[in-house]
Amino acid sequence: MSYHNLTLHTDKYQINMMYAHWVNGSHKSKAVFEAFFRKLPFGNGYAVFAGLERIVNYINNLHFDDDIIAYLAEQEENYDPEFLKLLRDFRFNGNLSAVEEGAIVFANEPLIRVEGEIFEAQLVETALLNFMNFQTLIATKASRIRQVAPDDILMEFGTRRAQEADAAIWGARAAYIVGFDATSNMRAGMLFGIPSKGTHAHAWVQSHDTEEQAFIRYAEALPNQVTLLVDTYDTLRSGVPLAIKVAKAMEQQGKQMNGIRLDSGDLAYLSKTARAMFDEAGLSYVKIVASNDLDEHIIFNLKAQGARIDSWGVGTQLITAADQPSLGGVYKLVAREKDGAYVPVIKISGNPEKVSTPGIKDAYRIVSRATGKAEADYVTLAGETEAVQGQKLKLFDKLHPYLFKFVEDYDAIPLLRPIFVEGKQVYELPALEQIRRFHREQLDLFWPEYLRKLNPAIYPIDLSVKAWQQKMDLIQEHSK
Amino acid sequence: MSYHNLTLHTDKYQINMMYAHWVNGSHKSKAVFEAFFRKLPFGNGYAVFAGLERIVNYINNLHFDDDIIAYLAEQEENYDPEFLKLLRDFRFNGNLSAVEEGAIVFANEPLIRVEGEIFEAQLVETALLNFMNFQTLIATKASRIRQVAPDDILMEFGTRRAQEADAAIWGARAAYIVGFDATSNMRAGMLFGIPSKGTHAHAWVQSHDTEEQAFIRYAEALPNQVTLLVDTYDTLRSGVPLAIKVAKAMEQQGKQMNGIRLDSGDLAYLSKTARAMFDEAGLSYVKIVASNDLDEHIIFNLKAQGARIDSWGVGTQLITAADQPSLGGVYKLVAREKDGAYVPVIKISGNPEKVSTPGIKDAYRIVSRATGKAEADYVTLAGETEAVQGQKLKLFDKLHPYLFKFVEDYDAIPLLRPIFVEGKQVYELPALEQIRRFHREQLDLFWPEYLRKLNPAIYPIDLSVKAWQQKMDLIQEHSK
Repeated sequence: MSYHNLTLHTDKYQINMMYAHWVNGSHKSKAVFEAFFRKLPFGNGYAVFAGLERIVNYINNLHFDDDIIAYLAEQEENYDPEFLKLLRDFRFNGNLSAVEEGAIVFANEPLIRVEGEIFEAQLVETALLNFMNFQTLIATKASRIRQVAPDDILMEFGTRRAQEADAAIWGARAAYIVGFDATSNMRAGMLFGIPSKGTHAHAWVQSHDTEEQAFIRYAEALPNQVTLLVDTYDTLRSGVPLAIKVAKAMEQQGKQMNGIRLDSGDLAYLSKTARAMFDEAGLSYVKIVASNDLDEHIIFNLKAQGARIDSWGVGTQLITAADQPSLGGVYKLVAREKDGAYVPVIKISGNPEKVSTPGIKDAYRIVSRATGKAEADYVTLAGETEAVQGQKLKLFDKLHPYLFKFVEDYDAIPLLRPIFVEGKQVYELPALEQIRRFHREQLDLFWPEYLRKLNPAIYPIDLSVKAWQQKMDLIQEHSK
Repeated sequence: MSYHNLTLHTDKYQINMMYAHWVNGSHKSKAVFEAFFRKLPFGNGYAVFAGLERIVNYINNLHFDDDIIAYLAEQEENYDPEFLKLLRDFRFNGNLSAVEEGAIVFANEPLIRVEGEIFEAQLVETALLNFMNFQTLIATKASRIRQVAPDDILMEFGTRRAQEADAAIWGARAAYIVGFDATSNMRAGMLFGIPSKGTHAHAWVQSHDTEEQAFIRYAEALPNQVTLLVDTYDTLRSGVPLAIKVAKAMEQQGKQMNGIRLDSGDLAYLSKTARAMFDEAGLSYVKIVASNDLDEHIIFNLKAQGARIDSWGVGTQLITAADQPSLGGVYKLVAREKDGAYVPVIKISGNPEKVSTPGIKDAYRIVSRATGKAEADYVTLAGETEAVQGQKLKLFDKLHPYLFKFVEDYDAIPLLRPIFVEGKQVYELPALEQIRRFHREQLDLFWPEYLRKLNPAIYPIDLSVKAWQQKMDLIQEHSK
């Protein structure tokens, strides 16, 4: 069985709908879907888009191999052999546009747009959402952590608590995109070129007769990477004094200890006391690393308490996004081909926030030339030109129309970039370091009020008048 | 790059400790590690062990290939080429025992025990925990959901919100182990032989001129699998009446509609009303499927309200274990070779629950012959025979020794089974249906008071006197 072929990493209903379209002869009709989320996670003021590299690889590798065809042939739906033959020749021939990885994004704007035969556009929904939702979620969580510790070393340490193997490595990559410095996962290190870091475990200490012997032997074996875990028996009475002794001995050999790691107890008190002990011993260069269920709130509070921690190993809370472990991204049909042209479609819902915005859309970031800062994102119907041409725009809150502002003298930066055109990849995947740079530039576009962790200002996402009017018209039409 | 080789799916510190042991010549020393968790998730009274099949495949496929060796050679630690040569010849030659998948397990008892050279026992820690923690977490969450809907159809629908691809499929498998009936993920269906189920999406309806046309065409295409999603525009005024019309038309052709799906709105009200409408139309065989952010609490309350739902599609809340998205399983050194014999080792901690229990251990489930029910799990030092011989046991609470009971006339069922002996797999992985049967038998061993979702009775996990005394002695020794 081909564990590594992700073509069937999709919901059964996608295959059923593909089949039903094929039976009805409508499978070659064109359709446009857009992926977006409705609500920012963690009460944050922004999200960081991630997942595109994974999506591009997925799209390029889609193929129904023998195993898959044989499996489908056995399904209770009794798929027609002609349909299965069509699948065997399947490849993705559609257009896909997306926001770039590392981009700052918001709720209710298109992040991925797929245009193609309904057959292919339907197949890819599940995997696209799976990758976008998780990676964007972790990038956003990691970004919150980076915000509270802008100048410290941040390490992703979560593999053992991650939700299986893929989450560990793609989560490590998402954290690196937004400015984490390293991961403990060596597979992520190898696959993505992320620096991998690690110290030693309690087991190292326990596997020696004494803690001192364990420290000395570790320092001998890896003299350039000595960070000693000091809490196996008693941090302040045993671990730290012995680490100081070893650091002094290393100095005799012309070497310097990197640091110590605290993994339990009161990290504020222990780090301040350990810092004082090392400083008093003339070892102010020895750094203090902390770990133990850290997140942005604990780090923020420890720093406010004056904790003397230089480097943070962040595990469970980051890699699972523990306070909100899913992003509710959706993939909605916005237009379909009818009589050779696209018509907009809507989904109505008793939950007003679930009513979709019909029509093929573009999105622009409106950046003031005077300040260099983003004023709003402007979502238009495809083909609307007033933003691209720099015309004066009226941005207004659709629920509270008295809240409005005019913008002019701006750049309108398109958010969606062409990734696949007629099935051909036209976008060169940037190197990870380039994505990190792009992400830093993205942050610079925003006033700090939008970026703060608690009660951020709400960044405006504005629908153009035409897009809004079309939505209202279709709601009207369906209420009849 | 070998994306699919999981050998480096480990923390850097494992490789560093392996290296340091090698430098010190201690890498061939034997060591024993045990994996366990300290606290049951979700306030549940038990957990369901899962992850073993994944672990067995991982162990069998461990190898440092060219890519990995080249990557390690570039690391800043400057690993000695002789060390890398040793890795190239690496294979797992140790012993591994584990609880079987589907077993009911509890906190603070060994679930996996690894005995081998410290070199190999250290390498596998991270991946073992990653697999055990996630799969056990999801099996436990799914079991809670099964408890509140013992006779309904349960379907796992979570892929799009899962934490990346592996979580989706291994989570689907974990849910199936504890009695879910199907998954929407076709890859999980194909790889594991889980029935895959699905209906259709809103996009199916939206891609037709009318909802009625969409329903008719779906019923024509897949006449044996017709479950219609009725909430695209208006559930009771449009979706349900049209579904009834289509069901009637199907009857004319001698066919039966399977069901309808509700995916938004008030599921109690809508299901009761829809049920009445179908019944009145003489269509009492048409089932009602519900989905939309369901979990065990919502299902329990909907059922208490008299909701007429036959089948539940459970997504996000299950696949991410949203109310507690990680299980804190750990892997602790319990004994190490010294002068040719094993000595027990301990980890002390300022947090008392984090003090490890030293020594190589076995665990037995004490099952009363009179009732056929489990009385307690009994954790002994390896080699203790009183339980196996059926001797009268005094079980007592170590914190509150006045809480005790004697047990006799019992069977002592060993929890740990040999999986690998000297690197050779000696355990035949059971078929998934066999695991499901084993799980049902496991449930039958427990009084319902231990299994209820809210405030379950606490099942006793008892350390033998010898194991307890050894722990106290080692704590004493380290406090000096």
